[in-house]
Amino acid sequence: MDLPVDLDKRLEETADRITVALDTLIPRVQGPEARLMSAMRYAALGGGKRLRPFLVLETGRLFGVDERCLLRVAAALECIHTYSLIHDDLPCMDDDDMRRGRPTVHIAYDEATAILAGDALLTIAFEILADPQTHADPNIRIALVARLAEASGARGMVGGQMMDMIAEELGDDIAAVTRMQRLKTGMLITYAVEVGALMGRASDEARHALSAYAHDLGLAFQITDDILDAEGSEDEVGKAVGKDEGRGKATFVSLLGLEGAKQRVSLLADQARAHLSMFGARAHYLNLIIDTIIQRRA
Amino acid sequence: MDLPVDLDKRLEETADRITVALDTLIPRVQGPEARLMSAMRYAALGGGKRLRPFLVLETGRLFGVDERCLLRVAAALECIHTYSLIHDDLPCMDDDDMRRGRPTVHIAYDEATAILAGDALLTIAFEILADPQTHADPNIRIALVARLAEASGARGMVGGQMMDMIAEELGDDIAAVTRMQRLKTGMLITYAVEVGALMGRASDEARHALSAYAHDLGLAFQITDDILDAEGSEDEVGKAVGKDEGRGKATFVSLLGLEGAKQRVSLLADQARAHLSMFGARAHYLNLIIDTIIQRRA
Repeated sequence: MDLPVDLDKRLEETADRITVALDTLIPRVQGPEARLMSAMRYAALGGGKRLRPFLVLETGRLFGVDERCLLRVAAALECIHTYSLIHDDLPCMDDDDMRRGRPTVHIAYDEATAILAGDALLTIAFEILADPQTHADPNIRIALVARLAEASGARGMVGGQMMDMIAEELGDDIAAVTRMQRLKTGMLITYAVEVGALMGRASDEARHALSAYAHDLGLAFQITDDILDAEGSEDEVGKAVGKDEGRGKATFVSLLGLEGAKQRVSLLADQARAHLSMFGARAHYLNLIIDTIIQRRA
Repeated sequence: MDLPVDLDKRLEETADRITVALDTLIPRVQGPEARLMSAMRYAALGGGKRLRPFLVLETGRLFGVDERCLLRVAAALECIHTYSLIHDDLPCMDDDDMRRGRPTVHIAYDEATAILAGDALLTIAFEILADPQTHADPNIRIALVARLAEASGARGMVGGQMMDMIAEELGDDIAAVTRMQRLKTGMLITYAVEVGALMGRASDEARHALSAYAHDLGLAFQITDDILDAEGSEDEVGKAVGKDEGRGKATFVSLLGLEGAKQRVSLLADQARAHLSMFGARAHYLNLIIDTIIQRRA
């Protein structure tokens, strides 16, 4: 096992490696379709916390999975995450001009290019997973494809985005808001945490512990998002804030109050830590990331 | 082998079976995400020629592939085709209000729902292919996924759409316009013709003959599209026409002239027929569809 280093250093190192992987997987091209690849690269290589890739790598390491394979799965997942941000930022959706401190894709390019770049990033994710370099066993590759499609499609992330758009109709129902967040962001975080166990043929016990960890971490992440939206400044968060309240949308903060939301996050963090106990010191960074997620300012 | 029936009857029968398959594969749901499924179903079940599914079924039958498996692949391919139409019709793209004689998805619903429904249809295509019901052999399933991703992504359909958007820049270059059409529509038609051979473990000779057939058929299809746009009436075509010329876009008609384009179609049709000779009478409907495609009025 590597000597423990500072979590920030570990996060930075992972982010760099993912950016290199994406740089290789999304080729530069000449000719008339260059604009498409350029927009895909602008969005995918433009930074971000790379939380999902970090989770793929750290959990995969628990089971001794080849890092080159983990990096490919992490990159595919980041392509899905990136496409969802591009489409979500469009004028007819959240209408955001800034993302990660830079102009969003439809501002830097145009709306049509943003839609196509999102479609192409979605598609390339499955192309990456299907490639033999991702895993020697076709049964594992097809499972990676099937689960990603489920977690990101109509009964996963996209379904959650649809629910979020009509969130006013969800009303003051904490169960409905929790389910919306579970679909919108939770299922892909669960995917990130589970694929390493899948690729490394982990025991059922280990899989269940990681699923439970992912569930609590994902929800804590999302409640923190709502807290940041309610109290953060645009400068810190790097995108527009205070939009939820303006839209009269039910959030964890509107439903639980600011203090109630913070208590819920703290409870979920304790639970997430408890689920990791079976992995001992090997889950060092998976433990540390919990605090980073709930204490973040952006 | 089935007794030959009228081609129109055969097409209608295929279209009905694909609609039933899509009806099963895209579930109706209750609750807040119902709007998403409803838009997906509106687009996918709303008719269309179902040319690609027809090609999947007819070529798969040449090699004795189980029809239930062929129907799943055909449905997945139709989900990709349908998503591309939804996104292509958006105001920032082709801005079409009508499709198949009905309001387009962003008119019948709204733009955000149209984007999400397209994303979800794209995703469900891979979910369908990855399912064990599509083929017992995971190597075949993963090949179906890999090829569909390649044919529909940045170096396939989406890349072609990007080129089409900036078609003015392609200028009067027949090679560039041909390549754009090859990417935009040709690669998915090739996929439709090749998957049956892949699933049925056809000989290399048979595969090459079908690839060549697909190439000529796809190009003939696209040149016919340009001819219809130049001379058709909106009523017959069921969508807006005369748009290419209005945009000063290079098309096969602008490059070859109306008569030159028609001669090219006729030549491609002869070539396509010749490629089928090795299959004899078993390719009856694949032969007949050539004329249907080039003689269509919409």
